[in-house]
Amino acid sequence: METAVQGTVPAQPAAYAKTDRTVPTRSAERASYDRELVHAILDEGYLCHLGFVRDGAPVVLPTLYGRVGEVLYLHGSTGSRPLRMTGQADPGLAVCVTVTHVDGLVLARSAFHHSVNYRSVVVHGIAHQVTDPEEKSRALDALVDHVVPGRAADSRPANKRELAATAVIRLDLNEVSAKTRTGGANDEPEDMDLPHWAGVLPLRKGYDAPVANGDLAADVAVPPYLTGA
Amino acid sequence: METAVQGTVPAQPAAYAKTDRTVPTRSAERASYDRELVHAILDEGYLCHLGFVRDGAPVVLPTLYGRVGEVLYLHGSTGSRPLRMTGQADPGLAVCVTVTHVDGLVLARSAFHHSVNYRSVVVHGIAHQVTDPEEKSRALDALVDHVVPGRAADSRPANKRELAATAVIRLDLNEVSAKTRTGGANDEPEDMDLPHWAGVLPLRKGYDAPVANGDLAADVAVPPYLTGA
Repeated sequence: METAVQGTVPAQPAAYAKTDRTVPTRSAERASYDRELVHAILDEGYLCHLGFVRDGAPVVLPTLYGRVGEVLYLHGSTGSRPLRMTGQADPGLAVCVTVTHVDGLVLARSAFHHSVNYRSVVVHGIAHQVTDPEEKSRALDALVDHVVPGRAADSRPANKRELAATAVIRLDLNEVSAKTRTGGANDEPEDMDLPHWAGVLPLRKGYDAPVANGDLAADVAVPPYLTGA
Repeated sequence: METAVQGTVPAQPAAYAKTDRTVPTRSAERASYDRELVHAILDEGYLCHLGFVRDGAPVVLPTLYGRVGEVLYLHGSTGSRPLRMTGQADPGLAVCVTVTHVDGLVLARSAFHHSVNYRSVVVHGIAHQVTDPEEKSRALDALVDHVVPGRAADSRPANKRELAATAVIRLDLNEVSAKTRTGGANDEPEDMDLPHWAGVLPLRKGYDAPVANGDLAADVAVPPYLTGA
């Protein structure tokens, strides 16, 4: 009889299950539930947009995040509003987390068909505050490594005071969808001979040279993970 | 007795009035209500994140938008969920619209002080569907010109069918705040001699060369507003 090897991650289905709110009412052909695509879009972002409800009204705030497997960790101070709402006595906070990349501007011959090429992920769920110190520590590493992969190991870890001052919420990746638009302009057949240029203006992604802090000692070199060396 | 000149835009105060929900609970020194700063951040973005409440839960979707003075216009199909909720019989839809630019990655000697440099605007309010055909037409021009300034005049305007198929919602810029982080890492004094590099990795903003549609006639040149010529 075979037994699971300890520590083996159970295999995940290749796609997230669809739900009522992850199936779009329009442009359904742009939607995807592919796990690898979702992970790639999430991992490429720097800030997510965290939505929650306060006094019946929506609030959307840009927030740092990191992913560990099928969990998103979101960062904040213990004083910030959404995190205060997820205390231990709390049943959790209903959130929607969205990450979007704009890849290009789509110029069509007709005003109507102008668009942008983009890739986005929308996650629905109940977020819970992370209270276990070990999980919190792992989450903070993930947040730092999300900004610059490998950086957590090359910085001073958070001390007790800092860990206490940081609130982290976790959101499981269960109800998830991606949406992407790629390719050129989709003009109407009768517009093909109009004299207007049609195509895509791609947005350039990259970095400028690192700017050292003014207070950095002269003998601290730029690390190779920032220069691609 | 002086009378207002017809058509003159009334002078606006230099800053938006603060409200309970536009004053942050933390990092208040990063908040701004300056009208020019808010406009500049909004005008530089391509997609906003539109938050609304459905069945008591938050929803955050990336959406095209444009600004005309103190009004944001948001774009969608008449079939899309948030726009269906703002029909004429409706009292409007409570929304939160957020636009964020990430300008750089902030690497500190301590994991705790890692951050990103960013500029964001958060708008709270009640959105209403635009039903007046002339306002809708102006709004669609603004949406196209927001993607590429000057482009609305260089494309075929929307026809009746397209106008009917497009829903636009308007959101007045009343309850608005900006938040920005700039500069280098803010490490603790006792960490200054740690061997870790500290500084900012700036994100490069720009465009790659325009990619013409495969179906574009060979004699249609790339317009000067795409090449900076």
